[in-house]
Amino acid sequence: MSWNRRHLLTLEELSLAELDQIHATAASFKKILTRSVKKVPALRGKTIVNLFLEPSTRTRMAFDMAAKRLSADTISLDAKSSSTTKGESLRDTAQNIEALQADMIVVRHSAPGSPLYLSKILGIPVINAGDGAHEHPTQGLLDTFTMRERLGSLKGRRVVILGDILYSRVARSNIQALKTFGADVTLVGPSTLVPKHLEALGVTVSHDLRSALADAEVVMLLRIQHERQNAGMFPSIGEYTSMFGLNQQRAAWLHPNAIIMHPGPINRGVEIDSELADGPRSVILDQVTNGIAVRMAVLYLCAGGQPEYVTPTG
Amino acid sequence: MSWNRRHLLTLEELSLAELDQIHATAASFKKILTRSVKKVPALRGKTIVNLFLEPSTRTRMAFDMAAKRLSADTISLDAKSSSTTKGESLRDTAQNIEALQADMIVVRHSAPGSPLYLSKILGIPVINAGDGAHEHPTQGLLDTFTMRERLGSLKGRRVVILGDILYSRVARSNIQALKTFGADVTLVGPSTLVPKHLEALGVTVSHDLRSALADAEVVMLLRIQHERQNAGMFPSIGEYTSMFGLNQQRAAWLHPNAIIMHPGPINRGVEIDSELADGPRSVILDQVTNGIAVRMAVLYLCAGGQPEYVTPTG
Amino acid sequence: MSWNRRHLLTLEELSLAELDQIHATAASFKKILTRSVKKVPALRGKTIVNLFLEPSTRTRMAFDMAAKRLSADTISLDAKSSSTTKGESLRDTAQNIEALQADMIVVRHSAPGSPLYLSKILGIPVINAGDGAHEHPTQGLLDTFTMRERLGSLKGRRVVILGDILYSRVARSNIQALKTFGADVTLVGPSTLVPKHLEALGVTVSHDLRSALADAEVVMLLRIQHERQNAGMFPSIGEYTSMFGLNQQRAAWLHPNAIIMHPGPINRGVEIDSELADGPRSVILDQVTNGIAVRMAVLYLCAGGQPEYVTPTG
Repeated sequence: MSWNRRHLLTLEELSLAELDQIHATAASFKKILTRSVKKVPALRGKTIVNLFLEPSTRTRMAFDMAAKRLSADTISLDAKSSSTTKGESLRDTAQNIEALQADMIVVRHSAPGSPLYLSKILGIPVINAGDGAHEHPTQGLLDTFTMRERLGSLKGRRVVILGDILYSRVARSNIQALKTFGADVTLVGPSTLVPKHLEALGVTVSHDLRSALADAEVVMLLRIQHERQNAGMFPSIGEYTSMFGLNQQRAAWLHPNAIIMHPGPINRGVEIDSELADGPRSVILDQVTNGIAVRMAVLYLCAGGQPEYVTPTG
Repeated sequence: MSWNRRHLLTLEELSLAELDQIHATAASFKKILTRSVKKVPALRGKTIVNLFLEPSTRTRMAFDMAAKRLSADTISLDAKSSSTTKGESLRDTAQNIEALQADMIVVRHSAPGSPLYLSKILGIPVINAGDGAHEHPTQGLLDTFTMRERLGSLKGRRVVILGDILYSRVARSNIQALKTFGADVTLVGPSTLVPKHLEALGVTVSHDLRSALADAEVVMLLRIQHERQNAGMFPSIGEYTSMFGLNQQRAAWLHPNAIIMHPGPINRGVEIDSELADGPRSVILDQVTNGIAVRMAVLYLCAGGQPEYVTPTG
Repeated sequence: MSWNRRHLLTLEELSLAELDQIHATAASFKKILTRSVKKVPALRGKTIVNLFLEPSTRTRMAFDMAAKRLSADTISLDAKSSSTTKGESLRDTAQNIEALQADMIVVRHSAPGSPLYLSKILGIPVINAGDGAHEHPTQGLLDTFTMRERLGSLKGRRVVILGDILYSRVARSNIQALKTFGADVTLVGPSTLVPKHLEALGVTVSHDLRSALADAEVVMLLRIQHERQNAGMFPSIGEYTSMFGLNQQRAAWLHPNAIIMHPGPINRGVEIDSELADGPRSVILDQVTNGIAVRMAVLYLCAGGQPEYVTPTG
């Protein structure tokens, strides 16, 4: 089967076959890049513009790294350096980038749907690197890639997402992909962060950590914002940690083979204890590493490559 | 005829033959780069430093893109990251960049004449990317390239520059090139932005939009600063738009084949209506695209290349 | 003799043979790069991350340039763009960079010993680009490289370091290397900036400029911070200049062949007069140029290269 999409906007619209194709392509890149080969010529001569209108370090860096390993050139534009601060519209900024002959645009923006909007007005591929509270599709792809690497098929697996989920695009993209893979997803946390109405996403919502973790094979933690502390919100950081922070005692409730995930940056001692973050069940750094291969796959496929990259000979 | 300049400081000093050589070289790059070839090896191994001591997005990005398409490496230094903020003189900063073995320096600075100054003390080519209210030569080159692409010879053509011209280096560089090409240039706008004494540049100054636009084949708009609004200046944004903003009705006064230009970023609804900016007469995005080829030509020629780049065979 | 270190953390731990190996390798790069060759393929395909958690322009730029001349890719992370501002620990940031498959990390940090700490937890080479008041080893290497280039053997040579030495990592790294090379080092300045207890470093401390400069073959100036001026400290800028600023009259006290050094950025008219900074004895810009070759040598050797780089044939 061939790959037919030019944009990656959301995981909601991807079929099981498409998710498989991205993961298979990522696996082929990962295999190549763990040998002494550090780069493939797949996108030589192409220029990828990273338009990050919300702050980001690790996602921008991972996209940059992925592009370079594909031999593409990259140019980064952030909110401060972009003309959007002079009141230029997103549309004009993006059309300028296209007119500058960029071959592809990776966009992070606070407005949900802005990558979709750009995909309709630009003639070049648009990759969503996070659009407000909507989706963060490459994060969902790398997370499910990491789960499959450890657990094999996700069909029927119990996956728990724990933390500040209400406006989390990471959770939303993971939920979309996990449902397509047939996993059984439970969202857990205090009701202010994980309101019942999130069940509309087709998942279970629980406020009872113990029963949620029981027999779960994956627990994915989300970052608790330090900014909560001074805002008089419930729960405060301390309240959250005492009720929902993952520690050795609570981790014992998990399935014996369970893995612990976190998109980073982690708050040691807040949502997770250090010994767990660095322990044998943690795949947090695997997620980071897999993020390169997965983003290489996305850039390569949307630029017109075909699944399962094969190194050119000669 | 061969190219003999190492620096690009101003368009005032360039002969018609030299302008032609730059445009012919830009055309050769544009031709190559619209095929599937994205890069030429012309400056492989060279390092170009972009020293931007005034804010810029699009010019810096275009120079960066141009350098990469020539296979050069680029390093960008802006006002915040440069040691000039520690009180280091421009001279010392520039000499350090040369000592770091940069092969070429692209400089934007608020002081008119600073690229000229640097060209006298450095042993490497200096490219002016905008020096205060003086000149912005690559903008003038890309604008006239775009005009010639649409209109052919500029000799005797009526070109109108409209907007905030008094301190505009974009206007100044365009005027220099247009005069050399033999065009007939009129500056239009309110007398506070387009005072009569600008006629010393060898152009016509008018405050009557209708007669100025009549039969013009090019109208180049300049950005009206939003900062005007709160400064109690005449005209305010609203006053400007009602008197000089380009809309469908006023655009009808132009020559039937006229093109509409703007160096960007545009203020939709202020100096130009959206339907015109996006309409068939607008060449605004062509200007952006041509900016790459023109800057490639400038970098290539000043690095010692000869006019009309020919792809190396083999 | 082969090179066995993976990290460059301090000059204190390097033997004379190791300093020689770095300098010999730097000399081989310098020789290659003064010909028309601008790049060597030594680190092609490797990615070097510059993690600069303290501000820096010239060191970061020099590392970037050195990496590019070795054909490596580089990614720069500064304090503002790094997640350390979200409260992420240095350890987590660094482990993430390693997980992103960086091949090497160049780190500047305000905490003395932080590169040493990172070298213990990461599996990739760590290069110290300045750690608080501790060391700045590549600066010490490039300074001593420049001295040897001009003076030959440093054994028994009189080297004076003059200025704000108390917390200077530049001074500290130079002292370590100079002692290993057998030079005779004197620190000079007012007692508030050069307290007597610095003699514990194995050098002479003097507060008498004339006797210190007498017959010195090297005088290395350190920058006086402008911030002193408003802090009511002794000496103020003006007091410093009148007592210790290097001018023609005082430079006459030096050995006839003496060279004048400064790590930059220089304060003309404060610690040094312009005519000296630009005069024949000044090697200030040579230091900058040598910084590229020396950093190439450090990156190359710590990545596993062997001393005295030889260009691959064919």
